[in-house]
This record gives sequence, C-alpha cells and structure tokens, in this order.
Amino acid sequence: MIGGGGNAMIGPIHLRAALMDNDIELVCGCFSRNYQTSLSTGEAWHVAPERIYRDYREMMEREAALPLGERMDFVAIVTPNRVHYEQAAMALDMGFDVVLDKPMTFSLDEALRLEEKVRQTGRTLALTHTYSAYPAIKEMKSRIAEGQLGRLRLVYVEYTQGWLSERIELLGGNNAGWRTDPSQAGKGGCVGDIGTHAWHLAEYVTGLEVEELCAELSTVVEGRSNDDNIAALLHFTGGVHGVLHATQVAAGEENRIVLRVYGERGGIEWAQQEPNTLIVRWADRPAEIVRTGNGYMSPLAKWNTRTPGGHPEGYIEAFANIYRNFVHTLRAKAAGETPRPEYLDFPTARDGVRGLQFIETMVASGYADEPKWVKWRTR
Amino acid sequence: MIGGGGNAMIGPIHLRAALMDNDIELVCGCFSRNYQTSLSTGEAWHVAPERIYRDYREMMEREAALPLGERMDFVAIVTPNRVHYEQAAMALDMGFDVVLDKPMTFSLDEALRLEEKVRQTGRTLALTHTYSAYPAIKEMKSRIAEGQLGRLRLVYVEYTQGWLSERIELLGGNNAGWRTDPSQAGKGGCVGDIGTHAWHLAEYVTGLEVEELCAELSTVVEGRSNDDNIAALLHFTGGVHGVLHATQVAAGEENRIVLRVYGERGGIEWAQQEPNTLIVRWADRPAEIVRTGNGYMSPLAKWNTRTPGGHPEGYIEAFANIYRNFVHTLRAKAAGETPRPEYLDFPTARDGVRGLQFIETMVASGYADEPKWVKWRTR
Amino acid sequence: MIGGGGNAMIGPIHLRAALMDNDIELVCGCFSRNYQTSLSTGEAWHVAPERIYRDYREMMEREAALPLGERMDFVAIVTPNRVHYEQAAMALDMGFDVVLDKPMTFSLDEALRLEEKVRQTGRTLALTHTYSAYPAIKEMKSRIAEGQLGRLRLVYVEYTQGWLSERIELLGGNNAGWRTDPSQAGKGGCVGDIGTHAWHLAEYVTGLEVEELCAELSTVVEGRSNDDNIAALLHFTGGVHGVLHATQVAAGEENRIVLRVYGERGGIEWAQQEPNTLIVRWADRPAEIVRTGNGYMSPLAKWNTRTPGGHPEGYIEAFANIYRNFVHTLRAKAAGETPRPEYLDFPTARDGVRGLQFIETMVASGYADEPKWVKWRTR
Amino acid sequence: MIGGGGNAMIGPIHLRAALMDNDIELVCGCFSRNYQTSLSTGEAWHVAPERIYRDYREMMEREAALPLGERMDFVAIVTPNRVHYEQAAMALDMGFDVVLDKPMTFSLDEALRLEEKVRQTGRTLALTHTYSAYPAIKEMKSRIAEGQLGRLRLVYVEYTQGWLSERIELLGGNNAGWRTDPSQAGKGGCVGDIGTHAWHLAEYVTGLEVEELCAELSTVVEGRSNDDNIAALLHFTGGVHGVLHATQVAAGEENRIVLRVYGERGGIEWAQQEPNTLIVRWADRPAEIVRTGNGYMSPLAKWNTRTPGGHPEGYIEAFANIYRNFVHTLRAKAAGETPRPEYLDFPTARDGVRGLQFIETMVASGYADEPKWVKWRTR
Repeated sequence: MIGGGGNAMIGPIHLRAALMDNDIELVCGCFSRNYQTSLSTGEAWHVAPERIYRDYREMMEREAALPLGERMDFVAIVTPNRVHYEQAAMALDMGFDVVLDKPMTFSLDEALRLEEKVRQTGRTLALTHTYSAYPAIKEMKSRIAEGQLGRLRLVYVEYTQGWLSERIELLGGNNAGWRTDPSQAGKGGCVGDIGTHAWHLAEYVTGLEVEELCAELSTVVEGRSNDDNIAALLHFTGGVHGVLHATQVAAGEENRIVLRVYGERGGIEWAQQEPNTLIVRWADRPAEIVRTGNGYMSPLAKWNTRTPGGHPEGYIEAFANIYRNFVHTLRAKAAGETPRPEYLDFPTARDGVRGLQFIETMVASGYADEPKWVKWRTR
Repeated sequence: MIGGGGNAMIGPIHLRAALMDNDIELVCGCFSRNYQTSLSTGEAWHVAPERIYRDYREMMEREAALPLGERMDFVAIVTPNRVHYEQAAMALDMGFDVVLDKPMTFSLDEALRLEEKVRQTGRTLALTHTYSAYPAIKEMKSRIAEGQLGRLRLVYVEYTQGWLSERIELLGGNNAGWRTDPSQAGKGGCVGDIGTHAWHLAEYVTGLEVEELCAELSTVVEGRSNDDNIAALLHFTGGVHGVLHATQVAAGEENRIVLRVYGERGGIEWAQQEPNTLIVRWADRPAEIVRTGNGYMSPLAKWNTRTPGGHPEGYIEAFANIYRNFVHTLRAKAAGETPRPEYLDFPTARDGVRGLQFIETMVASGYADEPKWVKWRTR
Repeated sequence: MIGGGGNAMIGPIHLRAALMDNDIELVCGCFSRNYQTSLSTGEAWHVAPERIYRDYREMMEREAALPLGERMDFVAIVTPNRVHYEQAAMALDMGFDVVLDKPMTFSLDEALRLEEKVRQTGRTLALTHTYSAYPAIKEMKSRIAEGQLGRLRLVYVEYTQGWLSERIELLGGNNAGWRTDPSQAGKGGCVGDIGTHAWHLAEYVTGLEVEELCAELSTVVEGRSNDDNIAALLHFTGGVHGVLHATQVAAGEENRIVLRVYGERGGIEWAQQEPNTLIVRWADRPAEIVRTGNGYMSPLAKWNTRTPGGHPEGYIEAFANIYRNFVHTLRAKAAGETPRPEYLDFPTARDGVRGLQFIETMVASGYADEPKWVKWRTR
Repeated sequence: MIGGGGNAMIGPIHLRAALMDNDIELVCGCFSRNYQTSLSTGEAWHVAPERIYRDYREMMEREAALPLGERMDFVAIVTPNRVHYEQAAMALDMGFDVVLDKPMTFSLDEALRLEEKVRQTGRTLALTHTYSAYPAIKEMKSRIAEGQLGRLRLVYVEYTQGWLSERIELLGGNNAGWRTDPSQAGKGGCVGDIGTHAWHLAEYVTGLEVEELCAELSTVVEGRSNDDNIAALLHFTGGVHGVLHATQVAAGEENRIVLRVYGERGGIEWAQQEPNTLIVRWADRPAEIVRTGNGYMSPLAKWNTRTPGGHPEGYIEAFANIYRNFVHTLRAKAAGETPRPEYLDFPTARDGVRGLQFIETMVASGYADEPKWVKWRTR
C-alpha cells in the first residue's frame, strides 16, 4: 500500500476491505512520506519492518526483486490524486496490478496516458468508486438493464456533505487540506472529490453516458480557492435528462448520496446512508421495498452480498466488493482464464478517464463567464 | 364558488377546507359551465336551488343585488387559470373578496392588471399556494427568519409527480386535459401547474427572491405540446444558490414535494407527503425531529395548527389555514381594524404576479435555442 | 353538542370533522357545565344564543319541542365518560340519534343498558373509535378479510404516549384531571383512555375477538391513583396470539399507535403518526408500500378517502369518516332504506360494550394478586 | 475455528469479522464433522492442509504441541450449542482462549460449569451476542448509564423474524434443522435462538437485570416440536417494567430487532436493520437523530466505530468489535496489564449463564399449565 498512514481516513478502510475475505494479505507498504509515520503505521498493521519502505520507488524496486509468490502481487494507492499517475504508472510498468483511489489522476491528460499504460501492459487497474459496489446498486443496475423501468426518462443524483461548512482546512491535521488546494487536488474541488462519485453512480446504474451538461461551480465559503458547491443539468445518451448537485457546505449533512432513476414504467431510489434498501415505484401498483440479502435479488446483487436479509452491510463491505472482484479477476488472468463478467464488474481506467472528462466538462461549463451547455469532451 | 363541479378534484377540497372551522358557509355557486352539472353539484352540497347560477356573471349580479348579510361575502374561484382574470376582476369590481386558485392568471399582463385591481378596490385576494400553509412550513419560515440557520447558503426544492406519465389527457374525463393544453394553461405546463408551487415554497420559506435562473423546460412524453418536466439553477437575493426541479412524468411518484434550506449553521428539510415533520440538522450536534402540535413550536406554526402532537394534520387543513386567515382578515377589515400579522399570512396578488414572472422567466431561459441565465423579469 | 367547550381538546375536533363534508350543521349545544363558558363557546361557533342551553336536559327537551326539520337531528356527546350513560340514554329516549366519545360509559353495566336502549329505540349510535376510521385501516381490514395474509398468526398493537409523564393532573386546566381520577374515569386509567383504542383496532382490523388475556396494569408515576401503563398477552379467536401494550408515561412520545398483523403469507403494519401508508410484507417477495388515494386501493378504503394519492389526510378526516358514515346511515334509515354496508362501517354500542368488557377483563387479570390468564367476560 | 464449514451462515461472518482489523489470522480449523467439507472449506480459506483437522480434539492436541507463537492463540467455536460445552471446556483446559457462539451451552448446568472453568483457568471467553456490539448500542448504553433519561421506567424489546414461517427444517440443507430440534437446540427454540439476543440487549443497555417474568412460549407452525414464538412481561431491578416478544414465524420480516428504553426525561430507540441511528426523544424538546461516526458520540461508541459519519457500518463490523475487544484483552493480559474497560466490554461466561437462566425461566413460566410470574432463577 502507498499512503494511508497517520490519521488518514481512507487507508484503514482500504485495509479492512481488502482483508475481510481472507484473499489478501498486507505484505509491504510505504504508508507516509514521513518515514516514522510509515513505520509506526506499518508496525500497527503487522507488516514486517524490512518491508516498510521509505518511498514508493524503493518499494516497487525491492519488491520486484523478490521471488514470485513472495513479492507483493498488487499495490493499493491511497495517496492524493496529484501523485497517482506517477505511482500507478510505475507499478504497471514493473508488473504490478493496481487499486487506485479516485479521481484517477490530476489531469485528464494523465488519465489518458494511464489508460494507455494499462492497455499496453495488460495489467489490471481497479478504481475505487466505492459507492457503485453496494449490493443494492448492483440490483438497481440489473433491474434497469433488464428493462424493468421501460425506456429511461430522468436521473436525479445528489451528493450532499457538510464537513467543509467552515474552513477546517486552515486547522491542519485533517483530510481537508489537500482537497481544498487546487495545486494538489486539480481543477475541481467538490466536483472532483464527490461530484465524480455522483456522476459515476448515474452512469454506472443506467448504462448511459452524459453527452452534454450545463453546470455551475461555486465557492460558498469565503476565502476558499476552489469550488465547494456544484449543480448541473445533464443530457444523457438516449435523450434522458438529469440533474446532479453536490456540495460540501450543507451544514449538518453527513454523507448523503441519493440516486433516483425514472423510466416510463416506474422509478428506483437509493440512499447511501441506508444502503441495503431500494424503493422501487411503479406507475400502476404499490411501491416495493427491495432489500439486499433476500432470495429475490438478482445474481449480480447476490454475488456482491455477504449477509442474509436483515443483517445490514455497509461501506466497508462495498469497498471489499471492489477488492474481491479485482482479486478474482487477477486470479482468473493468472490462470489464463477469461474472468467471469461479475468479476470484471469494478471501475477501471475507462471510468477514470471519464471521471476526469467529467471534471473538465463541468469546469468548462460552470466557470464560463456565461454558464452554458457544454458537450462532453471525449478524447 | 365558481367551478369545482362534476369530477373536479380541487372543488371539494376547497369546500371542506372552507367549512372546517365553522366560519364559512356555502351559499351560492355556479359549479360548472354545464348547468345540469352545476345543479347536481349544488344540490349535493345543499345549496338552495335558486342560488345555483347559470354563469358567474349572473351569480355576481344577482348576489350583489341581495341585501348585505344575505348575499355572499366572497367568492372562491376554482376554474382553469385561463378564465381567472375576468372572473376575479369582476368579483373585485362588484365588491366581493376573492379566493383564487394558482397560477393566478393566464398571462403576466393579466396578473399585473389584477394586482392593480386589488389595490384600487381595496378588496382582499387570497391565492391558494396551499403548500405554504402547512404548519411545519410556518415553523420552517419562523426558524429561518429568526436566524437559526445563520446566513443562508443553499435551497433545494423539488416537486415530483408521475400522473402524466402517459398521455391520459387523451382519455378525457380527468384533470389532465386543460393542464396539458397551452391554449388553456398558458405558456407553461408543468412549470405553471407545479413548478410555481415549488418556486413559491422556496421564496416563502426563505424570505428571499429569485434574481436570475438558468432553466430547461422539456417535454418527455411524445406528442404533448407543452412542458412536462423542468429543472433550473437559481440565484436568490443575498448570493444564495438553489436547484429546482419538477416533473409530472416520474412514473410511480404521487405528489413528492421536498424542500431543503441550508445555512452556515445547519439545514431544515420538509417533505409534503409526511407534512407534520421537519428534520433540522445542525453542524455541531444531532439533527432534530421537529413535529407540529408540540409546545416548542413557534407562534406562527401554532396558530396554523388544529391538533395536538401526534394527531396528524394533512392537505385539507393546510388549505383551511388559507381560508381561515383570509376570513380573519376580512373580519378585521370589516371591523375597521388592522388585521394581525398572522391573519395576513396568506398568498396574495403579489405572489400571483411573481408566479407569472417565474413562468415567464423559466420560459425565456428554458426554451431559448441555447439555454442561458436569465434575469428575473420584474415589472 | 354536549361538552366540548372551553379548552377541551376533542370538542373542536368533533366540530371540524362533522362540518367538513357539508352534511352537518351545528345548531345547538350546551358546551360546558359552566354556562358562561358554554355561551362563549357557542358564540364563537356561531350558534344562535337561544339555542345555547344551560344543561343537556333543557337542551333535549326544548329541541324535542321544536318542529321536525328545525330541531336538532342528532346529538354529539363529548363529555367525560362518567356522564355518558345518562346523556345518551336520554337522547335516545327522546328520539335523537347519538355520536358518543369512547369509552362508551363508566361501567360495563351501563354499557349493556345503553346497548339495550339502542336496540329498543331503534335509533343509531356511533362511538368515536376514531383510529379505526383511517382509510389505511380500512385497507388493512379489507386485505385481511380477503385472505391476503392467509391464516392469521400474530397481532402486535401498541399505544404509546408521554403526556402523563409527570403529574400534570395536579396543575389543573388540562385534560389530565378527570382522566387520572378513578371516580370520574372509572376502573381504568390508561387502559380505558387509550388501551381501548389499541384493543379496538386489533379486533376491528382482524375481525377476531379476544378470548382471554394475561395482563399487568401498573402505575409508574408515583402518587397517581389509577394505571398509567399496561401490557397484556392476548389470545384471539382462531388461536391467534397477540401482545398489546399502552402507556401514557413514555416521556417524549406523542401519540404512537402501531398495529401489526401477521399471517402465514405475510404481514401488514400501520403507524398512526404517518397514517396514509401501510407496509405490506410478503414471505416470498419484496414488501410493498401501500398508500391511500391510489387507484389500487380497496373500495372500502376509497370510500373513506377524500384526497388523491400524495395529498395527506389526517386525524380530522378520520373523525369525519365516522360522522359521514353515521349521517349516511341516518339518511338511509330516514328514507326507509337499508343503509349500505360501507355506511354502517362505524363503531356502535356493541363496540362500546366490548370496550367496557376489555377494561373489566384487563382489571380482573392485571390487578389480581397473582396476575393470571382471564377469560373475556362476555355478557 | 471449530465449525463454520459448508453452507453455514455464521462461519464466514465470524471469519470476516475476525480478519477485518488485521489483528487475527486464521491458522487452523476443523470446519465440519465431514472431513471433506472441512478440507474444502479450509482450502477456500487458505488454511495450510496440515492444519485442517479431522476433529476438534485432534486440533487442540496437535496445536497445543506446536511451539508458542506458531500454534493457534485462541479458538472460535461456531458449532450448534449442544456441543459447545465439551469443545469450550477442552480449549480452556488446554490453554486456549475461546470465542463462542450463543446460547453458550445446551443447559444451564453446563453454563455454570463452563463459567467455573473460565474462572479456574484464568482464560478469556467471549460470547458473540453480536447485537450488543453495534456502536449505536454502545451509545445507548453510555447515555443511559450517564443518567440522560433520568430514572428508567420502561423497556420494550422485540426480535421478529419470518424465516421459519414454513417448516423449512424438513427440506434439509439449511440452518433450520438443528435449531428446531429440541434434542440439539435444548429446551428453547425461538427463546434460545433469538429470544436470548433480545433479553441480552435489554439488560446490556440498561444495566438492569430481569428479576421475574410472565411468559408464553408457543408453537405457531403445526408439527414443530419446540417454540417458534414467545412473549413475556418483564420486571427488572429497580421496578422497571418491560415487554419482550420474539418470533420466527412473522412471514415477511427479515431480522427486525427493535429496542426502546424510556425514563422519566425521555426515551431512546434503536432498530437493528438501520443500525447506525438512535432516535432520542425528550419530554420537553424535539427528538434527536443520533448517528454513529459523529464527533458528539460517547467515547465507548467511538471506540467501536470504524468509519466517519454517513459511511454506514453493519453487522460484520459489530461482530468485529467483539473480536477486536477480545484480542485487545488477550494482548493486555499477555503483557501482564489490566485490560482497559473498553477492551473488556464484550459478553462473557456471565452473560452466557444468565442467557441459559433466561431460557429456563421463560420455559418455567411459559410452559406451565397456567402461565404465571416466575422469579429469575439465579444460581
């Protein structure tokens, strides 16, 4: 693992998600740019001291020099996105598969190069758009793909947080610092950090792509230098309309992600904070409460479920689904087999490229002097 | 009452709301353009046959000829908005106060003329933006006015219905016909029918006004000739941003109105389908469930509440609040007194004018070849 | 109307419920034992001063002396239950139909005599077990009667309030006084005031009768002289088991009534504080959210509904359903017709007798030195 | 690990919970009485073939013979409770600490002997009353212990399932078989399987003990030979009253556990199926929505939380809390330190003994010819 040390929030989540299914062991890492932090983190996580490295280059070189079976099989990169490209590219070049936090890179250009690198090396890259890995989201996707809603009409997606309601980035010692610094986070603040999650869910669940959008990016909290609040009207393929909004300054909200998709026969709603439930509404009969862990769920949802109905799963299990599918894919490839479709159901470099395109398109639309509809910039 | 006969949905609601507090009696009416329908409706509602009239002109003339105390005191107009202006203007001219369904008129021009007529005659006009009359909405308004949320930041409002998911206007015999016919409903379909409710709630609760907006009006169901789906980014006075969306084609939804307002200290959420509850979220402590009928409610909410906590009120009681405040205002004016502020807390011609401005601004923005930000057209 | 004056809670509710459908007019009353209170209440309610009476006997005598068509048609009795019998019996004897608050009388003996009086006079008596008149409860009853749940198994019903958490009866000026005084409320405190509602809902919805029970009645708040907290295990006809609990000392609760019935194929749940929704769970498929006002509802639910889906109804509308069905029944009888079954669907003297039997059986079981199973005392 | 192989539900849950925090490795096991099943399970879980044993005796003996540091540190026993005593007792005797599924043993006698064995050996035993390990339950316990509710009054707890609505035990191949067989599950069916969870939650959260109860145990599904449905009135220490009901035949319910505790100042409610939320009601102000992961939570809740607010945790994390606290306790003891109180906060043999006492008391009350109040049998 690269990163995740000290008081990082997402490192321990990655670790727990990776370990949960007993298919992955943490064998080495450089957990912080500060070697002492790295050492103490590694020790707490039972990593052999000689495999706690001073920097990621050293780690990759020394691990690559170990015999197969002993050296690390893949690397999880949980650093700020400014350094994703160089770390991921090096890993791929040296023969390691990669799990990478989103947004995939700092710029669209890097994203395209990384996608190309994955193609060239034939390695596997998973991007942790975690929310798309909840079993209820899999169910939503399956039902829509099956046509249960008929022709799609509308997509509403929101991601509402309040943790940046004040300038806590000035306090230091938290995860707000780099996220609110354009030199580290890239062109987008809120749009990159959480807007991408909202956008990804919408595309993943519907199987549609955004074709053009009309956005506004704004900075609500005075003194902040990138956006902390966004809203956009969306046009998807197939004439489907959508509305997306995301904010990190809605004081009092925790991590409210709500996704709704309507078609001509009904609609499906999911809310991340109670993630095991879908509300499926029908034009002509009572709405249904579809719950994970039940026998009536789709195969894709069941494959991504670990507990029977009524025994709630959460965020760590969603994360673990990405790791599990990634590992099953690696194993199949190692065995010379074609991975089964449900194994391949995790976000890849393609999602990463589209994520950076989303940020760029939002910025192009939302920061124009006169906000306007902007076609999705595909390259 | 003018209109409301036959299978109209809103007529009986008006009647129940008006009667509930024992301050109003139904004494006369012309309930339909079809006299037989009018007669049978009036008979069912215990109106003396001689006071069931053939048309509204006859009604006003003959009622005006009755002695004071015997003749009707005010008229409730529950017809399609195309005929609102002429009916309301005549009533005002003949000395009757008016309760009027929204949108107030067919065009902004008529709205301005009607507002002027109210001013000239000194009569009272109440517009039934019913949703703003729920006690929980009064509480939300009171708390925001008091500054509990600090400086406001964000307003999200949606109005989501599914009843026009198919072209039921082709079937006849329902309320969809005139609403989907631009020659009867005016420039806006969905934007006028329900978009105005969403917009009104946002302005009423925050005390802010929309200054400019960027909208899209669309027609989702093929063959329909006005909009059935809208979305807009909003800029309110004071730099507050908002998102509004409304649709009548979200198959499976009943009458979902959700309003959320966030300020620097917290946010408040209200959902019309469970109308007696507010969720008040705080940046620094647990969210609260504020419920109507409790001792801790604001005076304005209490004044608009009829039952103790836990005895739910609904849509008809909200409607009744408008009638009650209207009647209390009439009485005070009749007694030569200044009506108390809580009596005057009902939508007036001003709200009607702004509602037509909202429709016009939305149309100007949302139907442009290139959707764009449009300043609110105030006149 | 007898009672309801001053600061009584339930009087104005009765009035609004009665008036709402424009079938009932308030023509006379004695609203309080205090004549001044009665006068001011009557005046506020637009009753002609000469028909505001000093006591109920005077009212009945003088009204009976008026010509038919002019005199009152029926009387609503909303006094403490200690005086119900004499007032209702006199009304029936003098040819007036009666709407009566529950519990029907002070003692079971009075209840049996009142039932007999109804039979002898051929008049109509409605008992306001209001909660059984919600449209969603009608739906629940219809579905169970239709066999949708298969053979019934379990009934859970609770009625949880907190308003008697402290001895507010000592403060005076509220509705707690007579309710907590055994000499006025009868043998049961909580068991009579709200326990009867819970029991009635269970029997009404299932169509079953309690055959025996094992209860505990307790007094939680020190110094109070009757029960404020009850719980019971129930055996219904057909081998169905149940649990009932009710309390008025659950600090923080408003008026939480929850009813759940399970059969071999599924279960239905209703919660009074969000009364327009049923959750219908199925053994083999997703749960459904059944909502009032929709086309798929049963005829009985539709008959008791006033608004389309998504326009919430509440407590006053439930109350109004009892009045409406009562009035339709009176009219049919006056016309010499057999009232239609949906008109007759309101609680009668039979429900009143069983309610008193419920109280007596609970007391017999719950106050025994050694609590025990007690057979329902039918007479 | 002993047990957990094949299609067992709880084995993989134990494993995931144990592994999640990277403090525990699965090193050996006998996962089934069927050696082939055991081998295939162990292989799937990456256990070295030579440490997959034919029976638990062999496992303990051969592991005990390994050098310290190499041999297993503790054993998780996830077999039917009929064999718990002999397996746990042997483990303790041979110097292994134990994690044990509930109910702790087959009989109260065994439970008492096992408790004595724990005392004699000085080893550590954790009982997986998982539901008491949710962070929101920790919060509820902390707030009650702090006196936030004032003097306690009422406890309502229910555990409602539907999975035994039909006699699926006749189909084989599932977890219903031994649970519905008195010779394997002991005196209680539902009362032991889930009733004990409900009882444990009530005592754990309040810090009170049940002193006497009046119960009914019944068999709803014909042909079944032990109870599948229970209900009881409870008397706790301090004069607190309670109601407990549990069933496995409420068709359509998944795993509904709801716990409510009321005191003189308010009440707290928790529902397992949305486990990250408490509703805290107050007599004199709005109810609060208390959510895990927030800064305002108690230290005990925070210690048992892995994710920030709005990132839901679930059943596996609750399970993992027991494993983590157990491991921290082992480490402290190994280091000669006194474990910190939050480490010791997991169910022990004492809870196991009281659990068996609960079953015996329920059986003594609920199966008597004439159900009656029975004093808790403490030994």
